[in-house]
Amino acid sequence: MTRSWWGWGNVEDAVRGAELRALLARVRALMPGDLTDHEPPAVASLGLPAPRVSAPASLAGLCSAEPADRAAHAHGKAFRDVVRNLHGELRHVPDLVARPRDERDVTDLLDWCSREGIAVVPFGGGTSVVGGVEPRCEGHPAVVTVDLERMDRVLEIDRTSRAARIQAGVFGPHLEDQLRPQGLTLRHFPQSFEFSTLGGWLATRAGGHYATLHTHIDDLVESMRVVTPSGVSASRRLPGSGAGPSPDRLFLGSEGTLGIITEAWMRLQERPHWRAGAAVRFGDHAAAVAATRAIAQSGLHPANCRLLDAAESLINAGVGVDGGLLVLAFESADHPVHHSLERAVELCRDHGGEPSAGTRGEPSAGTRGEPSAGTRGEPGGDSGGGTGAGSAADTWRSSFLRMPYQRDALARHSVIAETFETACTWDTFPVLHRAVTEAAGQAVREATGTEGLVTCRFTHVYPDGPAPYFGVYAPGRWGDMVAQWDHIKAAVSEAIETTGGTITHHHAVGRDHRPWYDRQRPEPFAAALSAAKTALDPAGVLNPGVLLPAR
Amino acid sequence: MTRSWWGWGNVEDAVRGAELRALLARVRALMPGDLTDHEPPAVASLGLPAPRVSAPASLAGLCSAEPADRAAHAHGKAFRDVVRNLHGELRHVPDLVARPRDERDVTDLLDWCSREGIAVVPFGGGTSVVGGVEPRCEGHPAVVTVDLERMDRVLEIDRTSRAARIQAGVFGPHLEDQLRPQGLTLRHFPQSFEFSTLGGWLATRAGGHYATLHTHIDDLVESMRVVTPSGVSASRRLPGSGAGPSPDRLFLGSEGTLGIITEAWMRLQERPHWRAGAAVRFGDHAAAVAATRAIAQSGLHPANCRLLDAAESLINAGVGVDGGLLVLAFESADHPVHHSLERAVELCRDHGGEPSAGTRGEPSAGTRGEPSAGTRGEPGGDSGGGTGAGSAADTWRSSFLRMPYQRDALARHSVIAETFETACTWDTFPVLHRAVTEAAGQAVREATGTEGLVTCRFTHVYPDGPAPYFGVYAPGRWGDMVAQWDHIKAAVSEAIETTGGTITHHHAVGRDHRPWYDRQRPEPFAAALSAAKTALDPAGVLNPGVLLPAR
Repeated sequence: MTRSWWGWGNVEDAVRGAELRALLARVRALMPGDLTDHEPPAVASLGLPAPRVSAPASLAGLCSAEPADRAAHAHGKAFRDVVRNLHGELRHVPDLVARPRDERDVTDLLDWCSREGIAVVPFGGGTSVVGGVEPRCEGHPAVVTVDLERMDRVLEIDRTSRAARIQAGVFGPHLEDQLRPQGLTLRHFPQSFEFSTLGGWLATRAGGHYATLHTHIDDLVESMRVVTPSGVSASRRLPGSGAGPSPDRLFLGSEGTLGIITEAWMRLQERPHWRAGAAVRFGDHAAAVAATRAIAQSGLHPANCRLLDAAESLINAGVGVDGGLLVLAFESADHPVHHSLERAVELCRDHGGEPSAGTRGEPSAGTRGEPSAGTRGEPGGDSGGGTGAGSAADTWRSSFLRMPYQRDALARHSVIAETFETACTWDTFPVLHRAVTEAAGQAVREATGTEGLVTCRFTHVYPDGPAPYFGVYAPGRWGDMVAQWDHIKAAVSEAIETTGGTITHHHAVGRDHRPWYDRQRPEPFAAALSAAKTALDPAGVLNPGVLLPAR
Repeated sequence: MTRSWWGWGNVEDAVRGAELRALLARVRALMPGDLTDHEPPAVASLGLPAPRVSAPASLAGLCSAEPADRAAHAHGKAFRDVVRNLHGELRHVPDLVARPRDERDVTDLLDWCSREGIAVVPFGGGTSVVGGVEPRCEGHPAVVTVDLERMDRVLEIDRTSRAARIQAGVFGPHLEDQLRPQGLTLRHFPQSFEFSTLGGWLATRAGGHYATLHTHIDDLVESMRVVTPSGVSASRRLPGSGAGPSPDRLFLGSEGTLGIITEAWMRLQERPHWRAGAAVRFGDHAAAVAATRAIAQSGLHPANCRLLDAAESLINAGVGVDGGLLVLAFESADHPVHHSLERAVELCRDHGGEPSAGTRGEPSAGTRGEPSAGTRGEPGGDSGGGTGAGSAADTWRSSFLRMPYQRDALARHSVIAETFETACTWDTFPVLHRAVTEAAGQAVREATGTEGLVTCRFTHVYPDGPAPYFGVYAPGRWGDMVAQWDHIKAAVSEAIETTGGTITHHHAVGRDHRPWYDRQRPEPFAAALSAAKTALDPAGVLNPGVLLPAR
């Protein structure tokens, strides 16, 4: 497999052939527009500027100045990143890409960069969609991107406590491969699972695939090691502690601005054995939301509780519904879960939901639902269970994994296709949903002169509110698509900010969310965070411009 | 009811009469010692120094210089506090006790104190057992204790999202009284429930009564308002967010060093309807621990999963067992829980546990398990359920609520009786348990020349480890008991620190845990926290000496 420098994932997995024809046919049916294909440029044609710095001899062996390396580390994987790559527009490129082998190398790299004032961009899998790895670091003589990919091992497994000490640079599948022989799993499956790393998840407070309970990487952390320019911060392995503000919580979400996470003890789980699931149709979206809320507040803790609105359901699950489709699943390594499913379905029926036939299936057959070589990144528990559960759920699951590839194919054909997410309380949701949908619709009209399509699903649900995830699809103009998307993004971000949502539920802040994050973040906390950064990174070299203004 | 100035809770609830005679008889049977009763001194006899400061006219109405007020705010409620009170040893007393009516008053008080360099001790219910409210503030011209008790209202309830905006000074019972008409509960029942406040819980990262899931106050917070000398930090109401490091997590556990928490939006729950419980006996402690671990890792999420060792079981549950007694309970507002109990009991049987007869009972009868006027502070779900469940569990529950009062009675009779807690991973527990037990035993011998008694129970269990809670009982020498206890406490703290536990699971750091906290806390994090404090509290007046060295 060859990693794509310009787009998502592996070159070999790009959308092509029949899948591409079907995708374009669906687009043609939904919206007008010129669907000419635009090939990505060759790296050699990009004309990257020469590196402005060379590493000292002691570090030179860790550093690459190869154009392909530098190009692949210039952008994240947002729609605007892919479009700029397709246009060959790489305005900010790291001067060097360093690949430390161990913590000592990380320390040495930070020492050198701090001494020289060279900006450091910590880099995991590079799937940031918020400019988090893009080296927009004016005011520094050079930028070194520190890619942790060589630090990819599970160093220790504590079977008794179900925890493992894991290097930060490991990618999802390789991590699970190392845990599987012990029957254990981190059970953290973000959509980017195959192409993102533990360190990236920790630095950005990643959201996993599961709808409830311990799905955020934050909750799976026992302890962390973080190399800062002021020394190594090593917290103690503890299942819980009340000793002062949590050290780990300061580094979780710090997005490379306070230090480089090198390893963590992570809480693991047994691989699930029992599963049950259902897909429930609703004729009315408000009723579907009410049912979802009832389940979120029931204490049933479904593994999946994904409410797709009508457009999302049609496009990605192939199911036509008037109000919404709720994809429900329960799973356990310890005990049967059909009681829980039955109760959840009952709550749906109370709100007018109609479950599809064959809503039970446990125990699951074989290794179903665990990420395996054949179905990279496939999250467990997403479908309706091992036997006979809704094919809508299955369809949705395969769509889920193909979405970023389809997004790239659409970008090549001048179609704007991007997502964004938030979280809000249940009482706020109707207002936020309407404001965001209207803002998106209007901004799409302003930017493209067409109606476009705005979809919404819940990726996670909490007792006090959902995490809505929106999709926007519209015909773009080749050459203008970044500006078009930025116009739409600004409008929806404004709507989220003013109706009380968070600017990001699990996509991080990076550089692109800063205007709205700055308004959402309490001022005294900003002062405290800035002071903490100065204490840990006195030279101000760590990911400047992310979370805080560059100094 | 009259709050005791020198001891726990209400004067009227002190141990006396038959309860006292039975307690002393148990002590006589277990250990030698002089059981002469020592009356607490009258406040008038304490000879408090005159206040070193008087409030400006605009704040004078909020401030009290009454000796009884100052005496009642001089110490927390640890054993060493009670003993010092009994001896009339109040070396550090606040000069004034201020009682702000609203956030504006808090701001004005902080402005005045910052200007004058007067130390500020934020005060909730004052049940600190770690010197957290004791005004040991050398280097400041005076100390003002800011008692939030007037800010005690539930300001708003969002029934849809199940959350409420609550002032920080509200005590547990009054908080629940204000939520009960809506059928809601915060469901946070620390042992101090009756005498501690929401703000105190938040500032110290309190642990609730429940054994698993969302029992820490940290997880129940939607947003917080904190008045700092540099302005009000107000976070946004969100069910989840990935926008940078969590602002709330910096203030949670800040113990009054970064600001004064004035209100918070808290996540609520429906009052439980379904309950089931059991008490399970084990012949072997290691097997009991293994069973408890299996349950903690099962995903069953018991409300109670309290493993008492043989000594704890005998003393506080009145049950003689060789290995341990596991008190199990499940509860839900939504669905029956007997399947969960059955599976948990099955896991116990797999490890040789024998459940007592009558282990089921749901739905629960009436309002059982919710704190009510008649059974102040009684936590829900502690017993074996509404019908026929183990009387051992019931006995244990009433002991639980009487423990602090009994501790006071024992202190008056020269008996050392104190507890401490930690948390560690399951693989570490046997080593930590042995080290702590041996260190406690040896230190008791050194300090008292007797064997004493060391007990252990688990108050909380996590998939990756338990929170062991130890009790130490030994005959003390009147006049020496603080030094005797401090010797024992230092020895067990050393054992905890060196075997990898946390110096506190839910009792906070305060001033007394500093030596071990400082060793446990990562140095770079200490630097970051100190810098954050300087940014928020430039004059260094907030609770000096807590968490960080006084400046």
